[in-house]
Formats: sequence, C-alpha cells, structure tokens
Amino acid sequence: MNTLPIPPAHGLPTSEFQDRLARAQKAMTAHELDALVVTAPHNVRYFTGFNTQFWESPTRPWFIVVPRQGELVAVIPEIGAPGMALTWVTDIRTWPAPQPDDDGVSLLSSTLSSLKRQFGRIGWEMGREQVIRMPIGDFDRLRGLERGYEFVNGSPLIWELRIVKSEAEIARISQACAIASASYAALPSKLAHGDTEYDVSRKIRLELMENGADTVPFAAVLSGQGGYDQIIVGPSERRLGAGDILFIDLGATYDGYSCDFDRNFAFGTPADDVKRAHEAIWQATEAGINAARPGATTTDLWRAMANVLEAAGSKGLNVGRMGHGLGMQLTEPPSNMPGDDTPLIPGMVMTIEPGMEFAPGKMLVHEENVVIREDGCELITWRAPREMPVIEA
Amino acid sequence: MNTLPIPPAHGLPTSEFQDRLARAQKAMTAHELDALVVTAPHNVRYFTGFNTQFWESPTRPWFIVVPRQGELVAVIPEIGAPGMALTWVTDIRTWPAPQPDDDGVSLLSSTLSSLKRQFGRIGWEMGREQVIRMPIGDFDRLRGLERGYEFVNGSPLIWELRIVKSEAEIARISQACAIASASYAALPSKLAHGDTEYDVSRKIRLELMENGADTVPFAAVLSGQGGYDQIIVGPSERRLGAGDILFIDLGATYDGYSCDFDRNFAFGTPADDVKRAHEAIWQATEAGINAARPGATTTDLWRAMANVLEAAGSKGLNVGRMGHGLGMQLTEPPSNMPGDDTPLIPGMVMTIEPGMEFAPGKMLVHEENVVIREDGCELITWRAPREMPVIEA
Repeated sequence: MNTLPIPPAHGLPTSEFQDRLARAQKAMTAHELDALVVTAPHNVRYFTGFNTQFWESPTRPWFIVVPRQGELVAVIPEIGAPGMALTWVTDIRTWPAPQPDDDGVSLLSSTLSSLKRQFGRIGWEMGREQVIRMPIGDFDRLRGLERGYEFVNGSPLIWELRIVKSEAEIARISQACAIASASYAALPSKLAHGDTEYDVSRKIRLELMENGADTVPFAAVLSGQGGYDQIIVGPSERRLGAGDILFIDLGATYDGYSCDFDRNFAFGTPADDVKRAHEAIWQATEAGINAARPGATTTDLWRAMANVLEAAGSKGLNVGRMGHGLGMQLTEPPSNMPGDDTPLIPGMVMTIEPGMEFAPGKMLVHEENVVIREDGCELITWRAPREMPVIEA
Repeated sequence: MNTLPIPPAHGLPTSEFQDRLARAQKAMTAHELDALVVTAPHNVRYFTGFNTQFWESPTRPWFIVVPRQGELVAVIPEIGAPGMALTWVTDIRTWPAPQPDDDGVSLLSSTLSSLKRQFGRIGWEMGREQVIRMPIGDFDRLRGLERGYEFVNGSPLIWELRIVKSEAEIARISQACAIASASYAALPSKLAHGDTEYDVSRKIRLELMENGADTVPFAAVLSGQGGYDQIIVGPSERRLGAGDILFIDLGATYDGYSCDFDRNFAFGTPADDVKRAHEAIWQATEAGINAARPGATTTDLWRAMANVLEAAGSKGLNVGRMGHGLGMQLTEPPSNMPGDDTPLIPGMVMTIEPGMEFAPGKMLVHEENVVIREDGCELITWRAPREMPVIEA
C-alpha cells in the first residue's frame, strides 16, 4: 500500500543556487560566452529561486544576467524588487515598469556594457524548447545597440545544466508524483456515469489540492467511445457513459517541480480490443522502465517500447515521441524518439510514455515517471494497475 | 446577498470567431498587412477557439496564419490535428513534431508563400505585452527565408481587436469574478491563526474549485506585520498571527476567461494606520469606479484614484499603475497610468487597482473589476467590505 510521504519544506537552500551558478560559469567558458541572459519563468527561477505566478501577466519583461565571472544581476521591474530581495540575489537593478517605450532595454544595455569581455558573445534563450519572454521588437533593438557583442543561442548551455537534477529537485518531483498518484488512486470511487469531463476535471483538481499540490498547471481530461484520438484538448462538456474510456494527464506541482503522467479509466467493462491495447501499453511501459539505465540512450528507450507496440499491432501514434525529460516544466528535453540519441545519465528524470493507435481514430497512451540511477532507474509514480479501473454504472 | 449565477455553457459559438476574423481582416487593410501570424496561447485561442493546457509543454511551436482574405490556416504539430479539428478551423496543416531541425519552419514558409500579396508585410507578435512563442533562432531563419515579405509588429492590431470584449466574453469574465467573489466571501470562516501562507493558498484554491473555477493560473498569497511590501511573491511557509495582514490576489478562470482582483484580511484587530490606509484605498476604489465611463481615459481613471491616495498621505506605489485591461489574460492593455491616455469605450473590461505605501515598507492594495458601459461602468466583482475582515485568534 502506497502512502503519501511527508513533503520537503518549500524553498531550496542557497547552496543549490550557488552550485547552479558555478556549473553555469564553468560551462560558459566551454561555450565561449561572456554572459547568459535569461527572461523566461523557469530559467529565471532556476538561477535565482525567484518564485512567482506573476508571469501570467504579460506586461513586464524581466532579465537575469548570468556573467561568466561574478554574481548574478537582476534587471527587473520595480514591482519585483522586494520579492527578488527574498532570494540569494543581491545585485538588483530596477526601472519603473510598465514603460512601453523603454521597458528595461536601456537598463539592460548598460548592464551588459559593464560585463568583462573576453569572447564577445552573449547567450540568449534562442533555441530549442525555449522562448525569449520580451517583445521581439525590443530584442531586435537591443541587438542593434550591443554592437560589441554577438547574441547567440544559449539554449544548449541551459539545457545542459537543467537536464540533470539534484537530489533536492528529485525530492520535489517525487513529491508531485506521489500527490498525483494518491489522487488518481482515490478518483474511481468519486466518478459516476453521467459526469461531464468538466466535472471530472474539478474532482481530480480537488483531490490534488487535498493531497498537497501547490498548483495544477496542466490537467488534460478527455474521453471517447472505446478510446480517444488525441491527448491534449479537454475537458469539454461531454458526458461520460458506458463504453467510454476516460483519459487524464496531470502536471501538478510541488514547490515548483512537476509530475507528468496519465491514467485511463473505463466506464463499464471495456471491449476486448481496448483490453488488448491496454495490456500492450502496460507491457511497453515495463519494457521502457527496464531499458531506462545509464549506458542506454533516449532512442534505445523509444526502441524498447516501440518493439512491444509494433508486435501488438500498433497503427502509429500522433504524439511524435514516447516520453521526455521532466523537472520544473512538465516536458523538458530530451525526447524518447528516433534521432534524439541522448545518453541517459544518473539524475535525469524521464517520462516513459508509450502509446498506440489500435483502431482507426482510437488510441491509448500510458505514462510513468522515473529517475535514472547508477544501476537502472527508480520509479517515482505509483505503478498503474495492469487492468484499467472500471467505473460501474 | 450575492449569489453565484448559473454559468454559461463552456465554449463560444462559431459566430464569435467569424466576427473576430472579419474584424481582423478589416483592420489588416488599415494596418497594411497581408497576414498576421500568431503563436502564443491566448492569440491562438482568440482566433480559433482551440483550448488546451498543452502550452505548458515548451516542446512544439504552433502557428495560426490569419490572411487578409480567406480562411484561417493552422500550421501545427500533428499531435494537435484532432483537437484543432474540433474548432471552426478547416485548413489544418501538420508536421511530425518534435523535429528540432525544422519544427514547422519549412511548412510555415510554404504557407506564407502562397498568400495573396498586396502590401508585402506580415504582422507578428513583436510588440508590447506579447511574445513570439517559438525559438527566436527559428524566427530569424524564417525572416531570412521570406525575402518578399517584411515581418512587422502586429501587436497593435491584435490589442485593437482584443481590447473590446463581446457580451459572450463579458459573461465568462463575470462568471470568473463571481466565482472568486464567492470564494473570498467564504474564506474568513476557514482561516485560523497558525495557518501558513501555503495553507491559505490551498484553502482558497479549494474554494475556487468548489465554486466552479476551471483553472487557477494566478493566486498570490502573502502577508506581513501591519502591511506588506510587495504583491507578487507568495505563498511561503510564513505562519500567520496577530497583527498580520493577509493579501490574496486571484486570477481564476471560467471557460478561458479570467478575473483579477485582490482582498485583504486582518489577523486580529488591525492597527489604526492600517485602518486609515484601508479606508483610503477603499475610497480610491470608489473614485475609480465613478470615473470609469466612456469619454474618460485610463489616465483620468488613474488621476481619480491618485487624488484620493495623495490626500491620504500616500508615499508611493511600486506597482507602476493602478489597474489595467482584463480578459483571457489576467492583465491586458491598457494601463491606468500617466501617459497611457487610452480612451475608455463600452465593452472594455478594466481592473480598478489603487494602492499606496502608507509607512516605510508597508503597503495596501485593493482591486475591483468593471465593464465599461454606455452610461458608466458595471461592477462585476462583489464589492469588498469597507472594513477589512478580521480573523480572531
């Protein structure tokens, strides 16, 4: 019988951020960068610990300058100064935002001018799975101003740092996984024929809150007769009844770290082809878990799952991959897919996410979360039951 | 006695999207654009109705092409095709994402090439309060490919459309406001001395779910002895006790539309200076509500509130403005501040958000939400009590 562990206290120790900065600065020499500038919520939090939901407001840009030598500089709207002062960052420079004609551009420019210049290159979030969170018109203007610097893609460096998690990070991801696991386990007794997908969404969100989730940024809830054809749009007002398969996928957070795994529920006894497909994705998950170890790559992981699904008659999958990294965000690089070829190393947290279309327009997807350890992997979700839970009428 | 209204059914009618496209196409001639390309969650949903929480995953870019003539084109990852097919969009073009070497760039480029060219300009989300949600390295590459087109700032056009809300949108914002109002009203009886801010966060989120919120993207919960010094970072593990002022600010959604307003609660009888400051911000809110009418500007609205606060001895405010637009996002243009000068017109939904520092490091902020109507404004939040609710030990 699984039980919810006592959660770690909220907030990471300062040593965590010191380590991150040290790793970043070491890597910046190899990447030939004089600084890295980050603007996006998860990257700002990664370096500073600044934790806010204020990113939901698109009004003001924020900039953290990570120099190759010395301390972080926060170039931020004045509304953020008292909150930033709660973190380990001490060099905080503000402007009276919003100020649409010059929202931080001049202040950031003067900050960059004072950097120690060796390579003439500054990294920005210009690459894969990253976004620069500022008006691109302002970014273009800044590129024009900084004639002594080339702005280059700093995303590979950022992902190189973030892809391996510390034990403190793993404890928080594990807590989020346990919270969602307990919530999924409690759900069947609360579901009823006649519920809409929105009703189910509310029920699972209440469970997550009761079990200690801080936020629920992602809760896909969707359904279909004998399977579903997609896994990202829902809930809707659709009412659940006999023959329906309900799919839920949760990205709930604890202390800023996310889980990401799904579960399937049958309304009434599922048809034989659904049972067979469920057995195939459950076995594919076993194969994925067994393959997840140092020495293997993300592509090996994909191959181990794909072999099981192909043998079971898979007609394909529109998801494009079978799992990915997990951390502050519910999906992070790398991807379990052909061509990715990322070596698995201890400290990576991965989702194992096989799925298959087993009849035209009908698919099933399954997912668990694991930590790569020296001798294999550690399962941090409560393993889904081999047979799909059935909600009786 | 206020009561929760029956919520509108989830999902907007197709006519809403037809109207949006017609308004956009008309404006595109005035803005001399052959097309607008949108990539960010709220803009994609504005034009298509595509409603997903999958934006939390940063892996794949999405593109909606709004041509000056003809129908919308969705250029999206194949994982999104079945979900997009549920919307009114019929021209859906996909690529097998993730595909980091060419994530939609070629497919979007060929789509743009087939546009009817008159002005040689394509608008993108390059300006104020907007972000291009794709790797900027890919955006730069695309700019290089599209030699026949200039990529220009399409943000003014987007905000020109989004700033005025339809009655269907207003009904949803109003529902979100009623849900949060009912949740705030129920909260005092559930709070106790000794609660942490995280405990309070969980209690208010549970209330919001019980009252019918779909999601809670923003819930700032913070506190301080006799006031607070910032309004965006929290909750923390801080424990509430006598003399503390608790501040909560909520952006909860119903059917994809948000509320945005805050409330203050006193733990034990507040000190006299807190009472005086609360009376001032309550009166400033009255002044703001009375000033919110067609013919006035956002700057007039700010002035009406600032007059009351200055008379009450305000020492300033680090927020930078006193309210803003509200809709799909919890903050949208315009801003109630000097220099903004946006004329208020019927259908705009605004927050009225005065605040003041009344002693060093101690501020109070207050907020209500209104719809601008022909003859003034309609309050859509349940007006805060004139005296701060007191939580007894």
